[in-house]
Amino acid sequence: MQLSDYIRDIQDFPKQGILFKDITPLLLSTKATHLAVDELYKKIEGKKIDVVVGIESRGFFFGTLLAQKLTCGFVPVRKPNKLPAETTSQIYALEYGEDKLEIHTDAIKKGDKVLIHDDVLATGGTAEAVCKLVEKLGGEVVQCNFLMELSFLSGREKLKNHEVKAVITY
Amino acid sequence: MQLSDYIRDIQDFPKQGILFKDITPLLLSTKATHLAVDELYKKIEGKKIDVVVGIESRGFFFGTLLAQKLTCGFVPVRKPNKLPAETTSQIYALEYGEDKLEIHTDAIKKGDKVLIHDDVLATGGTAEAVCKLVEKLGGEVVQCNFLMELSFLSGREKLKNHEVKAVITY
Repeated sequence: MQLSDYIRDIQDFPKQGILFKDITPLLLSTKATHLAVDELYKKIEGKKIDVVVGIESRGFFFGTLLAQKLTCGFVPVRKPNKLPAETTSQIYALEYGEDKLEIHTDAIKKGDKVLIHDDVLATGGTAEAVCKLVEKLGGEVVQCNFLMELSFLSGREKLKNHEVKAVITY
Repeated sequence: MQLSDYIRDIQDFPKQGILFKDITPLLLSTKATHLAVDELYKKIEGKKIDVVVGIESRGFFFGTLLAQKLTCGFVPVRKPNKLPAETTSQIYALEYGEDKLEIHTDAIKKGDKVLIHDDVLATGGTAEAVCKLVEKLGGEVVQCNFLMELSFLSGREKLKNHEVKAVITY
């Protein structure tokens, strides 16, 4: 079974000129989902992880599954005003303008060993912001872990102070 | 272990007068998350399920876990313009105005036995819209399944043609 067979290309989404990698066919297959979680898990190679941080909202799919496989907690990072308790926030640059991500301030404890997960590594701006959020709270980013990496966008450059792993590289 | 011990009340979120049930402490505990999935699974009582449909975005957490436990596919229902392929949509009423939900048109096949999952049953408007989406595509809604039910909001009324189950009732 090839995981990449379960990811389909969608032309011009979310805008003209972008080739979007759609993981919904993968989620429709139990076997492919199971394999994807196994492959993500293998990338962690026995490292101790206290918390998986998943990025809204496609990072929630495999983030929760991975946290259960690692028998550790799961923490969502969300867009502004979605998390109900006290939050810590980080602004990051978009192509035009900026956006903000939030995490619950009590979700990460000082010294927690954190795995950051998202479905795709593109320019790295989002993951870089999440690394900063985790570090603001005193957590240690053990790895940034992605199902897919769009290597032509050089997202690893922004994350060069961290270990970066991806299951599928385009 | 009491699951309700892992759900915290947040006063006045998302607006004044609302007591929000926050499941993030539950997600931080592997054991509590595992138990929650077991309890959701028990509610299905051996019924055949082809697809779990999870509602954006808190329905993604336990929806993906539940689909893996049921060894069936997972399908996300999302806010407008988030799903990349061809979608079918459903408008539903909010307190003021209306909103829209979308599903990939090819995600449900005619005759598919579908479990709809969300974290909380409140007024039932969202779940009712998702039932309509599934039925538009020819799927059969076997159960609407929630981690929590705010029974004082009478969401079951809107879903009275469907089986409704919840693990925790307030």
